Amino acid sequence: MVTVSFMPEGKRAEAKIGESLLEVARRSGVDIIGPCNGRALCGKCTVKIINGSDSVSAATEEEKAVLTPRKLNEGYRLSCRCRVVREGAISVFVPSESRSGEYVLLVEGEVFEERLDPVVRKVRVVLPAKVWGALDEAVASPDLPRRFSLHSLQKLSRMADVGTEKELSFIIHNDEVVDVRENCRPLGFAVDVGTTKVAGYLVDLTSGKTLATVSEINPQIAYGEDVISRIDHALKEGVEVLHRKIVDCINELMKKACDAAGSSVEDVYELVAVGNTVMHHLLLSLEPKRLAYFPYTPTTREPLYVMAESIGIRANAEARLFTPPLIAGYIGSDVVADIIATNVYEEDGPVILVDIGTNTEIVVKGDGRLAACSTASGPAFEGAHIAYGMRAATGAIYRAEVLADGDVKYKVVGNAMPRGITGSAVVDIIAGLFKVGLMDRTGRLNTSAGTRRIRVGATGYPEFVVEYKENTAIGEDITLTQKDIREIQLAKAAIRAGMNILMKRLRVKASEVERLYVAGAFGFFLNPISARTIGLYPEIELSRVRLVGNAAGAGARAMLLSGTLRGIAHDVAKKIEHVELASEQEFQREFMEAIPIPGTEAV
Amino acid sequence: MVTVSFMPEGKRAEAKIGESLLEVARRSGVDIIGPCNGRALCGKCTVKIINGSDSVSAATEEEKAVLTPRKLNEGYRLSCRCRVVREGAISVFVPSESRSGEYVLLVEGEVFEERLDPVVRKVRVVLPAKVWGALDEAVASPDLPRRFSLHSLQKLSRMADVGTEKELSFIIHNDEVVDVRENCRPLGFAVDVGTTKVAGYLVDLTSGKTLATVSEINPQIAYGEDVISRIDHALKEGVEVLHRKIVDCINELMKKACDAAGSSVEDVYELVAVGNTVMHHLLLSLEPKRLAYFPYTPTTREPLYVMAESIGIRANAEARLFTPPLIAGYIGSDVVADIIATNVYEEDGPVILVDIGTNTEIVVKGDGRLAACSTASGPAFEGAHIAYGMRAATGAIYRAEVLADGDVKYKVVGNAMPRGITGSAVVDIIAGLFKVGLMDRTGRLNTSAGTRRIRVGATGYPEFVVEYKENTAIGEDITLTQKDIREIQLAKAAIRAGMNILMKRLRVKASEVERLYVAGAFGFFLNPISARTIGLYPEIELSRVRLVGNAAGAGARAMLLSGTLRGIAHDVAKKIEHVELASEQEFQREFMEAIPIPGTEAV
Repeated sequence: MVTVSFMPEGKRAEAKIGESLLEVARRSGVDIIGPCNGRALCGKCTVKIINGSDSVSAATEEEKAVLTPRKLNEGYRLSCRCRVVREGAISVFVPSESRSGEYVLLVEGEVFEERLDPVVRKVRVVLPAKVWGALDEAVASPDLPRRFSLHSLQKLSRMADVGTEKELSFIIHNDEVVDVRENCRPLGFAVDVGTTKVAGYLVDLTSGKTLATVSEINPQIAYGEDVISRIDHALKEGVEVLHRKIVDCINELMKKACDAAGSSVEDVYELVAVGNTVMHHLLLSLEPKRLAYFPYTPTTREPLYVMAESIGIRANAEARLFTPPLIAGYIGSDVVADIIATNVYEEDGPVILVDIGTNTEIVVKGDGRLAACSTASGPAFEGAHIAYGMRAATGAIYRAEVLADGDVKYKVVGNAMPRGITGSAVVDIIAGLFKVGLMDRTGRLNTSAGTRRIRVGATGYPEFVVEYKENTAIGEDITLTQKDIREIQLAKAAIRAGMNILMKRLRVKASEVERLYVAGAFGFFLNPISARTIGLYPEIELSRVRLVGNAAGAGARAMLLSGTLRGIAHDVAKKIEHVELASEQEFQREFMEAIPIPGTEAV
Repeated sequence: MVTVSFMPEGKRAEAKIGESLLEVARRSGVDIIGPCNGRALCGKCTVKIINGSDSVSAATEEEKAVLTPRKLNEGYRLSCRCRVVREGAISVFVPSESRSGEYVLLVEGEVFEERLDPVVRKVRVVLPAKVWGALDEAVASPDLPRRFSLHSLQKLSRMADVGTEKELSFIIHNDEVVDVRENCRPLGFAVDVGTTKVAGYLVDLTSGKTLATVSEINPQIAYGEDVISRIDHALKEGVEVLHRKIVDCINELMKKACDAAGSSVEDVYELVAVGNTVMHHLLLSLEPKRLAYFPYTPTTREPLYVMAESIGIRANAEARLFTPPLIAGYIGSDVVADIIATNVYEEDGPVILVDIGTNTEIVVKGDGRLAACSTASGPAFEGAHIAYGMRAATGAIYRAEVLADGDVKYKVVGNAMPRGITGSAVVDIIAGLFKVGLMDRTGRLNTSAGTRRIRVGATGYPEFVVEYKENTAIGEDITLTQKDIREIQLAKAAIRAGMNILMKRLRVKASEVERLYVAGAFGFFLNPISARTIGLYPEIELSRVRLVGNAAGAGARAMLLSGTLRGIAHDVAKKIEHVELASEQEFQREFMEAIPIPGTEAV
């Protein structure tokens, strides 16, 4: 058996000699599109071999026909043709172009660096038959701490037979024995509690291996799509209902993951949960009263260890839940996890991290400092408030290119007839319209450009026809309106203004930025070239941009596996400077300047 | 109002000007006998004024008629005549002669030194109306730790109103805020879990004041009177039933104490429980399997902090239970508490501490070391295995004097017709018989001494008539048999042998002993002169003997009030040398030599 790691998820799968990478990927739930169904015709299932090229077959004639020599040279292959041929560690990068996007909920983050120094560990010790001192002294071993929890002592008193030697598993949390078992593989569960989705990772705390990845829509969504409506509900009806919803969801996910891994929730000794400040408060049953009013103060920003049972989580009775620190009311532990996953705190040069959503969090490192802000970018990037906007589900145009003549090439999730446009494709189209001159830098559509695709819509405002009704699944034209463009301009201006303010504060110049990390599901599907074209971020070399997907989940998993990283997270949260944009005088000016395409520098 | 402290209990009561000390004592549950019902006739309600003689009335003519000039000079007064006349701190010693013994279950220990540095404390802090940082940072005060428990954060998030200044009570356990209340007086509950009785002390953790003292028969007694039968039951039926019994008992006592003090169990934030090793294990639901077999290893000897709720104790949800360390299978945390209460660890010279019961624990300090042993003294001192033996209940002869002619003067609990003899009176009688020559030093009754009180009983063995049936409540003679004398000889020999072995090991000579502490309910009623006469302890000056009653309870209360003392308890338990008598070769020889009256030195 050979192990294949799929990046950027970091998902590992066992492969048999002779299997194609596409087969391995599909079997293990890694999302690769393949319209021609493995016949090497469409060239869509491209992957890049990062490591272990010796262990895969040489490029076939079919691949050479589809892929350019340069691509082949860079290590790109068709996953339907590239087969495992001998043992070795194979690492494969699946570019977002090769993903269907149907599994957007399942996108995982890349683990940039793995540290394995978990807080929970297991030690096997032989209890001698003849015990002279106390039982807990009799099992003395240099690997065991002196402290035993009452629960572990109760178990020990029952399991130790008089006069019989016995080997037992001691589960240790930090410097305390918390359980005694005949045998056991201690597991951990990392949870990224998003406003929309909840993702969980079941991890073997000894090997560091991820045993199962699960996700579910956040059931709180029944009480509103965004954090504001969740807060409203909590203030009116009490926090308890929303608290129970998310705890139940975590319990179900954990059970599902344990079932998938052939384990029991009894073996889960630790959980790490990250989320924005509102999700954090609802999970811990902290009333979010003050999060509703400026200056949005959380109850606490400290990292917490609590008995998982005390908030209703059904893992082992001794399981702890660790929640990393928060930075502010609108910058939660998910951002701390982003920072941990991307290693921003250890990089030398200037770095920008942006996690795009309805609220976009921005972190900038520079001048030996770290600063963070949150900006209200609105839901346009997620397809809301866009005439034909939709999420990345079947029928969504998720990538688009505007040709010089105004025609549009696009990709649709599930290769179906289009039903709407995702935020990422909207950005592609706006960037394209600007490039080919169908839209000016103020964002106005050029109605006199000579393309019939630009017309005056029913509302009296200009619009751009992305696809005509003959080719859509909805029986009407799919268009991008002038108003849609304005929505995206406002959204990107909010992000860009926040970025500019942090960069100025830390004296970071765009040309010096060594890395731009784009985190979050939306960012993962966003075409970095289009994003730069519309001015979502400054002129940064594309090679310095990293799409890191669900970095929050990856950071949660990394902290589950490493006590050191928890310490770093605490330091980062204490050190980071929170910039409250609402109280920054320059914000309005920066915002206004960022509205044009590409904005700011072009001024 | 004036405060009167009753010693050796240390019980404090408020008194009004004009009240007699007897009235104050009775109102506050301090046990003083008064057969003449306050008419200054019987002279039984004698107390000694230790402090505050200026605040009480001068001796009346009636008192001068009853008390000797020497007694009066020493500060003795009739409590029925001695009245509070002005403000001041009055401290009164109630000698055991003035106690009825009916309340033997209520005997409290003397607190030798009070330290007030409790682990739980309250801090009042104003939460400002406008909060910029996190809520827990906003209440920052030099008196508050940085750490908040989740429970306290949940409360804080609900209690802090937006835009309103609010003063709140923060309850701190060690270095963590564990609760937030509008207002609250944090209480503690110290419990001495005896095999027979359970005593509880409700304490105000801020002032150190004892608010209520309660006690109850240990309900486990339904499963056997001694620790061996409790272990048997636990091994056959599981530990759970006995565990529940004692937890329920503590819950009831705590509720009763809180009701008496006008408080709620919600205000109890900490408990300290001491007991012998078996009681300790049953309380904590540790299976006592190994306590049944030599070498009697406990599961743990370490001090433990557990959430009280986790073992079913119904105090505040955040209440902790502290159990001090154990020394060995037969030397429990009650002995550690004895040591703490009597300050043995701080005394300079050689000291002996003995806690007499079915198992008698002995602690000796000397040569800069501490050593402890446990010896199986049996139940004779408690009246069991003695023909007319009984506990100190109504009708029990609890003190006796054998006159030169063989007649017996005695005191009966409740001044009733006698029904039997307590262990303490048995010791008085044996000592008396020896002194007046009616018994030789081997313990044999002298049948040819010319008193008709010594006769051959129905069993064919000699016996001594303590009271003839005309004067008893049972319609038959109350006698002390030759076998009874043997039982007491074996019991005292076991204690004396243990004491001798420890003294030799630490090079302690009887003449150098600075203090002999006699702990436990039985020891409190034992006449020290009689005890010395029969050789229960070596020739130690009477002024150096201290009857400290329930020192274990006092020690538990002292540890409830002082984190420092818990640290000392831990040090003491680690440092103390446990001597396992069964493995001491000299034990049999010492035991044999200690059987005669007075034993050992006389040889």
